[in-house]
Amino acid sequence: MTVGKVYLVGAGPGDPGLLTLRGKEVLSLAEVVIYDALIHPRILSFIPKTAKRIFRGSQGKAGAMSQAQINTLLVRLALQGKRVVRLKGGDPFVFGRGAEEILALVEKKIPFEVVPGVSSAFAVPAYAGIPVTHRALNSSFTVVTGHEDPSKNETQVDWAHLAQDQGTLIFLMGLHTLPELCRRLIEEGKDSQTPAAVIQ
Amino acid sequence: MTVGKVYLVGAGPGDPGLLTLRGKEVLSLAEVVIYDALIHPRILSFIPKTAKRIFRGSQGKAGAMSQAQINTLLVRLALQGKRVVRLKGGDPFVFGRGAEEILALVEKKIPFEVVPGVSSAFAVPAYAGIPVTHRALNSSFTVVTGHEDPSKNETQVDWAHLAQDQGTLIFLMGLHTLPELCRRLIEEGKDSQTPAAVIQ
Repeated sequence: MTVGKVYLVGAGPGDPGLLTLRGKEVLSLAEVVIYDALIHPRILSFIPKTAKRIFRGSQGKAGAMSQAQINTLLVRLALQGKRVVRLKGGDPFVFGRGAEEILALVEKKIPFEVVPGVSSAFAVPAYAGIPVTHRALNSSFTVVTGHEDPSKNETQVDWAHLAQDQGTLIFLMGLHTLPELCRRLIEEGKDSQTPAAVIQ
Repeated sequence: MTVGKVYLVGAGPGDPGLLTLRGKEVLSLAEVVIYDALIHPRILSFIPKTAKRIFRGSQGKAGAMSQAQINTLLVRLALQGKRVVRLKGGDPFVFGRGAEEILALVEKKIPFEVVPGVSSAFAVPAYAGIPVTHRALNSSFTVVTGHEDPSKNETQVDWAHLAQDQGTLIFLMGLHTLPELCRRLIEEGKDSQTPAAVIQ
């Protein structure tokens, strides 16, 4: 049997208008779609009625598929010859665990295509009226995950380093760790009067 | 006369398939489009035949419009009641000088909408097979402009700080400053064996 193909598609930050043209095209040709929580219904409506939809569940909730289960499923479906779309919020490679899925596919020599998406890292501030860069004000910005792998023995986040950063700092999925995050930055020397926004 | 509206649209990193659905929609309703160099012809084909197209010229080349001229033009066209699209590569707020354009509009109380785009910062590495994050390897990435405002008295780039960064470093538009950039990072302590890719 001919092996199928896996399309790793970024759905963007929420607004269905921020899906890419290629993302819509690929969805409309899918035979199976494995999708994350928080994908807008209008984006899901681009999936053909004949295609199988698999909801991976809300992360951390009962019944949700683990990353290992998703990797195995992607491989199995592709080996069955299916055109599979793995649909994720934001961009697949911006803390989207896309790298792990691609590695599983590469190992089995399964063809794939990555369709990048608009990342919430700068699009969500933009919708709130905040540009993450201004030519006169900063020459860099840093995107940090606010939600590290819980199995890690210690944090990879270097708070002392971040506290000294003169550019814009953007924490993704940092709502639950917000108090800790602010405390660590201030403790390490960040001015407590630094302008900040929390966007949900 | 009713005042018009300005749409700041990110065209994405090059591939026309990475334009957003909203970006295409807004272009198809434009009365005037001011566009940058390196926008794919297929994206420009979405502009109605009746609309006026204004090429801002290649930056740094003779005849190119300055940022101040663009700001003035956006304001003038909007005050004439036009529906104006300002079409830029990548994302308007990721070193796209969108912030300066928006400030000019805000000052004159001109309505605007920002349509974020896929940023080359992570999409170009993705097309080259390089995820900018991997859950087991890094918890942050930093995007730096390789092309600072030449009118600045001194660089805002903190090389010592960047050299200590443990996450992925991404330099945009760094082709001309590449030798200097590598020299500064290594001088400040970055391991000269750090894996790196140059993508054009």
